[in-house]
Amino acid sequence: MHEIYMRTAIDLAAEGVERGDGGPFGALVALDGEIVGRGWNRVVAAKDPTAHAEMLAIREAAQRLNRCHLDGADLYTTCAPCPMCLAAAHWAHIGRIFYAAREEDAAAIGFDDGEIRRQLQLSAEAQRLPRFALMRPEALAVFQLWRDSDQRRTY
Amino acid sequence: MHEIYMRTAIDLAAEGVERGDGGPFGALVALDGEIVGRGWNRVVAAKDPTAHAEMLAIREAAQRLNRCHLDGADLYTTCAPCPMCLAAAHWAHIGRIFYAAREEDAAAIGFDDGEIRRQLQLSAEAQRLPRFALMRPEALAVFQLWRDSDQRRTY
Repeated sequence: MHEIYMRTAIDLAAEGVERGDGGPFGALVALDGEIVGRGWNRVVAAKDPTAHAEMLAIREAAQRLNRCHLDGADLYTTCAPCPMCLAAAHWAHIGRIFYAAREEDAAAIGFDDGEIRRQLQLSAEAQRLPRFALMRPEALAVFQLWRDSDQRRTY
Repeated sequence: MHEIYMRTAIDLAAEGVERGDGGPFGALVALDGEIVGRGWNRVVAAKDPTAHAEMLAIREAAQRLNRCHLDGADLYTTCAPCPMCLAAAHWAHIGRIFYAAREEDAAAIGFDDGEIRRQLQLSAEAQRLPRFALMRPEALAVFQLWRDSDQRRTY
C-alpha cells in the first residue's frame, strides 16, 4: 500500500512538471485506506510561495474532511518535507510521513530546503532574517479578548 | 510607521477574534510604504491548519504583486511566527519581521508553536512524527524530468 500511494504521489509530481507549475514535487494525504488530499508544487504557476505539494495536499484533506486536524492520516511526499511543510504536518496532526527523495537531493537541483532548515535551527538573533519586537502589550490585549470570548478554540 | 503597521495588524487580529475565525493573531506584508497583504488566523473558520495570519498575508501579497518572491517586503505579525510561517517568510524572501507577542505568550494561551519549534530542532529520528523512506530512485527520475524540461525555474 505504501508503494501504491508513493507511486501516486510521484505521478502527481510528474504531472506538475509537465504542466510547468513549479518544482518536481508531489504529495498526498491518506486516511483509512483512502486518498483524501492531493497536491503538486504550484509555486510558480500560482505565484504562491507556500504552494508546496504537501501544503496543498494537507489543505485539500482538511477541506474534504471538514476539520483542521487529520489525526491518523499519513502524508506521502516525493521529497523529505521542508520546515514549512513539516511544521504544517505537525499543526495538522499528521500521524506518519513517508518520503522518497532526500533533502540533499532537493539541494542538488537548486532548492533552498536545507538552508532554510539550517536557519531555523539558529537562535533568533543569529538568523539571516532579522526580527524586531514592538507593541507586545497591545497584542496581549487581543489575546485577552480571545480568552474572554465565547468562541475560543485552540487547535 | 512601524507602529502604524503593527496597530493595523493588531486590529486584524481583533477582527478575527470577533468573527470567531481562529486564534488571536493578525499579520500584514508591507512593501515600499504600502500594505500589500493582510491576514488574520482562520484555522477554525476555514478548516485549514495552514491558515495562519502570516501565511494568508504572504499569499495575498504574492497574488497582488503577481510574483512568488517578495524581496524588500516586511512582515508585521502580532506574535512571533511559528516555524511554518517563519519558513514561509524565508521562501517568500521577506526582508524583515516585526512581531509583538512572544512565543511564550502563545504557549500561555494554549498554542503549540513552542513544541513544534522544539520538534523541528531535533534530528529526524528523534522527532515525534515518524518518517519512513521509500522509492527514492523513482522520485529522482521526476527530478531528472524537471531538469530536462524547458520550463524549469527554481525559486
